[in-house]
Amino acid sequence: MKLCSDSKILIVGLGLIGGSYAQGLSAKGYEVGGIAKSAETVAYALGKGYISSGYTEVNKEYVGKFDVVIFALYPKVFLSWLEKYGSYIKRGAYVTDVTGVKTSVVYKAREILRGRAEFIGAHPMAGKEVYGIKNADYKIFRGANYIVTPTADNTEDAKEICADIGRALGFKRISFLSPEEHDEMIGFLSQLAHMIAVALMDCKESKHLVDYTGNSFRDLTRIADINEDMWTELFLLNKDELIKQTDLFSEKLKELRDALAEEDAEKMKEMMRLSSKRRRYFNVKPKEEKIE
Amino acid sequence: MKLCSDSKILIVGLGLIGGSYAQGLSAKGYEVGGIAKSAETVAYALGKGYISSGYTEVNKEYVGKFDVVIFALYPKVFLSWLEKYGSYIKRGAYVTDVTGVKTSVVYKAREILRGRAEFIGAHPMAGKEVYGIKNADYKIFRGANYIVTPTADNTEDAKEICADIGRALGFKRISFLSPEEHDEMIGFLSQLAHMIAVALMDCKESKHLVDYTGNSFRDLTRIADINEDMWTELFLLNKDELIKQTDLFSEKLKELRDALAEEDAEKMKEMMRLSSKRRRYFNVKPKEEKIE
Repeated sequence: MKLCSDSKILIVGLGLIGGSYAQGLSAKGYEVGGIAKSAETVAYALGKGYISSGYTEVNKEYVGKFDVVIFALYPKVFLSWLEKYGSYIKRGAYVTDVTGVKTSVVYKAREILRGRAEFIGAHPMAGKEVYGIKNADYKIFRGANYIVTPTADNTEDAKEICADIGRALGFKRISFLSPEEHDEMIGFLSQLAHMIAVALMDCKESKHLVDYTGNSFRDLTRIADINEDMWTELFLLNKDELIKQTDLFSEKLKELRDALAEEDAEKMKEMMRLSSKRRRYFNVKPKEEKIE
Repeated sequence: MKLCSDSKILIVGLGLIGGSYAQGLSAKGYEVGGIAKSAETVAYALGKGYISSGYTEVNKEYVGKFDVVIFALYPKVFLSWLEKYGSYIKRGAYVTDVTGVKTSVVYKAREILRGRAEFIGAHPMAGKEVYGIKNADYKIFRGANYIVTPTADNTEDAKEICADIGRALGFKRISFLSPEEHDEMIGFLSQLAHMIAVALMDCKESKHLVDYTGNSFRDLTRIADINEDMWTELFLLNKDELIKQTDLFSEKLKELRDALAEEDAEKMKEMMRLSSKRRRYFNVKPKEEKIE
């Protein structure tokens, strides 16, 4: 089975990502319902046609009519929602999410649902530096990556449906990684990058530096303007992996720093040749790709 | 005295920056001569009208006719040139450079010239990731910063002439910093940024990561594709300052890493709030600004 054209999809959480999902899936012709905390958000989503029904309350009958439920909440809020209302979900439904950490979420979600409905994790690697449904725009998914993170227990149907959601939203590349592989990769590529940017920006009062700052420093610190609640939660939920990646980076930086201290020019050049070679793999930059 | 319209300017070294200087100053109507290692480069510069005379040999009579001499060479090559041929320079001429480190260059250059001609350092904060005179384009200076680095002994005339060169080339902002202030600032804003990018790129074989890499990691590592000879020389010439800046950064990163290890969410959020606040000073990005 794949995602059917008459599948009813519920999106819980209508922020930037949930709102963009709702917009994109409705545009594709799916019947999309929504649950959000604020009445204003629900009214906005209804008014824009992103959802055809929506509530601020969690109603058993309403939740129970959907074939697919997508959670677009912060990881911890998502898990407590599931603890509280998971039993409202239709038996046999497929449940997925959009959170940026997987190992600490996926197994718990599957455990809470206990086979009543099938959970399968997904990470849409897209975002903007603005928040809320008023900034929703499913075009941010075009050209971006979408990672499905099945466990050994997930069914083929769940994998296909989850991948179909990514395809319906226009993601460029759908891949499959285990939750553990995902967290290692995202710990290095995304979370460590944010750690570095925050630490660098925290080094000095920067007001007087603005006049001398060029593209290198600007590019490195762009992501230092950061949503502290979300990223602190994501960092903590991937703690062990992120610490491992940070220590790996710190060791490499120390290697270069020590080569400099010892005036070992050959070692420095060797490290630069390696970085140049590896960076060139990235030279073809896909259009509109985003990852936060 | 300021830079006169009939001042004769010699540019030694006709690579990307020297070539762009020659092009820009000729376009402004100055008489520009050039010295470069390769006959092909000299011929190209003459053919394009970037210089009105040029040689591969260093001829005493030729060098002696210029009022201003600009060195666009790697720092060490520049200092040995000056050792060897400094006495050819016209008595009372003004001499400047384009190197990215100052303390280790400026005092030596002044010492070598021993008052025969007046040296004053300058750092045009512009560049491209390509090299050679065929990529010369003085439009890279538009919107960029140009820093004059006088010592306590420089004359007002030298400062004005050096600033005038920056103005003639179209730099957006001309500032004055002591060589020491310059090196601290550039150690942090530019060299440390390059250290971080190289170390991060060296952490892992990255071919398989390309598929999952988004803008954060791409932005952080753009400058990891690096000219190893030039940057190793620049790093070594600013060794003490760069080690100081790198250690400052490593400490900050360790602070954030330790907060994560201790699950000190409040400390993590505090560091993120500070980085967000400081990064917002940079939000207005000047058009076409470049710094390498």
